Amino acid sequence: MSEVTATYKFYGKPGTFEKKAEDIALGLTVGSWTNLAILEKEQLKKHKGYVLKVIEGVDEDGRTFAEIIISYPSVNFSPDLPAILTTVFGKLSLDGEVKLLNLEFSESVERNFPGPRFGIDGIRDRLGVTDRPLVMSIFKGVIGRDLLFLEKQLRDQALGGVDLVKDDEILFESNLAPFAERIKMGRRVLDEVHEQTGHRTLYAVNLTGRTSEVISKARLARELGADALLFNVFTYGLDVLQELREDPEIDIPLMAHPAFSGAFTQSSHYGVSHKLFLGKLLRLAGADFGLFPSPYGSVALEREATLGIGHELTVERRYKKSFPVPSAGIHPGLVPLIYRDFGEESVINAGGGIHGHPDGAIGGGKAFRQAVEAVLQKQTLREAAKEHKELEKAIVLWGSQEVSEG
Amino acid sequence: MSEVTATYKFYGKPGTFEKKAEDIALGLTVGSWTNLAILEKEQLKKHKGYVLKVIEGVDEDGRTFAEIIISYPSVNFSPDLPAILTTVFGKLSLDGEVKLLNLEFSESVERNFPGPRFGIDGIRDRLGVTDRPLVMSIFKGVIGRDLLFLEKQLRDQALGGVDLVKDDEILFESNLAPFAERIKMGRRVLDEVHEQTGHRTLYAVNLTGRTSEVISKARLARELGADALLFNVFTYGLDVLQELREDPEIDIPLMAHPAFSGAFTQSSHYGVSHKLFLGKLLRLAGADFGLFPSPYGSVALEREATLGIGHELTVERRYKKSFPVPSAGIHPGLVPLIYRDFGEESVINAGGGIHGHPDGAIGGGKAFRQAVEAVLQKQTLREAAKEHKELEKAIVLWGSQEVSEG
Repeated sequence: MSEVTATYKFYGKPGTFEKKAEDIALGLTVGSWTNLAILEKEQLKKHKGYVLKVIEGVDEDGRTFAEIIISYPSVNFSPDLPAILTTVFGKLSLDGEVKLLNLEFSESVERNFPGPRFGIDGIRDRLGVTDRPLVMSIFKGVIGRDLLFLEKQLRDQALGGVDLVKDDEILFESNLAPFAERIKMGRRVLDEVHEQTGHRTLYAVNLTGRTSEVISKARLARELGADALLFNVFTYGLDVLQELREDPEIDIPLMAHPAFSGAFTQSSHYGVSHKLFLGKLLRLAGADFGLFPSPYGSVALEREATLGIGHELTVERRYKKSFPVPSAGIHPGLVPLIYRDFGEESVINAGGGIHGHPDGAIGGGKAFRQAVEAVLQKQTLREAAKEHKELEKAIVLWGSQEVSEG
Repeated sequence: MSEVTATYKFYGKPGTFEKKAEDIALGLTVGSWTNLAILEKEQLKKHKGYVLKVIEGVDEDGRTFAEIIISYPSVNFSPDLPAILTTVFGKLSLDGEVKLLNLEFSESVERNFPGPRFGIDGIRDRLGVTDRPLVMSIFKGVIGRDLLFLEKQLRDQALGGVDLVKDDEILFESNLAPFAERIKMGRRVLDEVHEQTGHRTLYAVNLTGRTSEVISKARLARELGADALLFNVFTYGLDVLQELREDPEIDIPLMAHPAFSGAFTQSSHYGVSHKLFLGKLLRLAGADFGLFPSPYGSVALEREATLGIGHELTVERRYKKSFPVPSAGIHPGLVPLIYRDFGEESVINAGGGIHGHPDGAIGGGKAFRQAVEAVLQKQTLREAAKEHKELEKAIVLWGSQEVSEG
């Protein structure tokens, strides 16, 4: 059957969950069942929701919960995320202590979603980098600064050897550094660096503004030679990301930022799971890169949640893989941990860990690339630091976390 | 100064909040401050965030929290909700135990938002009802049903004397009852009832589909004679609601459904406050009606939260008022409570309390209207039930909550 299957975690009294589950399966589909005439049951059968599983448990605080799995026939909704989310977690999101843990899509539903246009392989092709995690850095302290300031930062970041540079997600339209001017500046600077060093860096410009504008702004960005688009998808809607992905004229990679997502992922009792929204749905809607807080920094997610996101972004599916980008609090000394947790198919992303390097962003970028190289060569960072002064300075400043072979 | 001021509730260790607040005010604006040169400080001054207040407290569980108020200069962002939410609660939403309680907009920022096109007064004009709460009912059990089934339900609801009927929010496009056919059927049925009884009922059709479609579908709805649009705004984005409101061709009332909003409002430690998202921002973006769970039913919000929503929808501001629509679990016996809590400027909204009446939806509608009349006449429902058999049957079935004069 064509369906969407939702897994929920509900808190409540022991023994009440079976009924609760039945009420939901009916309430969010045909409304009622037992009192219907036989003819009506025949007619409504393909519209009725089904309870697949109810498993009661007790959490670490001694509170009773249940994992409830319900299947919703796709004939009831149009195959778009607003309709699916309204069905499976519309009213229900307001109904007591409930968290949406997962959604499974049958193939006929999944087929309506595009997945990433480029995916991990497509991004690697663009960069000509096939055999290592990528390194990304973020502009820092750019609010209130002009284009010249950004140009200097971008050049230094690229000269350090990072593969990607992203805008700060809080950089919006301003007279100081307008969207189109940033793209043109980026194109020029990165071409110059490429000519000078042979190294290619991609710049993801922040796509902002009113919802009706973002498609045309994205097309403009493409025309002006933008490499990639950063998008604060959760302040718009996943469906807007999907529309960007599906527009044939916007054939550049999309980078999804997790801004605002904490509002509905961070509670363990309410909202939705990280892996579903920052992993599965971002990929399904078409993000080539999925950013999320790393488990190592100050703005940190639990390791298990981040591994779940990484898994959803890269597990084999009918569409392409998205690059996991664990972010926040990353410095070169953490590269062994990131590699252990996310492997080669990931992007190592840093802000302070690039710009705060004693030799500036150039040194920061080099230190990251040296750390990546060391890990791939199965060297410890301490060993590698003997040969690479940028890495050495980074480790002196921030320390390092070696990972022993298991 | 032109600014947006955000109030947060943070959990953490006593004595740490002042620094936390300063870090946020800088981190979400200019990045750093103390180490800047005097000339740079001069340049960046108008971009810098400011901590306005930090008040530490202890909650009922003995945990320390702080209410932190920070002001963000509007020069840093474009005047749209995606930009504002990314600035004030983008990264921050992922940064520990933090809830966004409120946003205040300076007048120059507020001016960028439309507020409702019709508002409470405009809706009253359309209906010719000036002196009582409105009564609304909801289609029930319509998934998998055809247009004839809906027609019968709509006619009965209108004949009962309700002012508004709304689609079930989980009714999407289907061959059985397509959007355009529902509108045409509704137009015909409600005109017939009007001719027959003199009573005017408005029908809010559920506006669904892909984001890029909703504007054109809404225009089509208007052309076909739709009375109003129901919109699952939180599975799209507040900015999409605002675009519907601002489109000159869509001059019909907008009804905002709270589907999915529980994901980011229900936790007391994370996400955003009910009054901000279901109240202030819905109104600012242009909702004529704001639906939310009532404090009385099975899917219930705390009374204080619902009063906060009601206040935000109706307090005097530079734009029109939105109708508060407390929903879920409403039956005629609750009308005195609803009137006490939300007053005349509200919509009494029921599903089961209409359709489950012993005399069906016609009887249900009549019972609600009788209950409203009784309350306005300062009669108890028990008294009024002596003269009105529909109200009497409702009270026998569901009971009643009288409110004594205070």
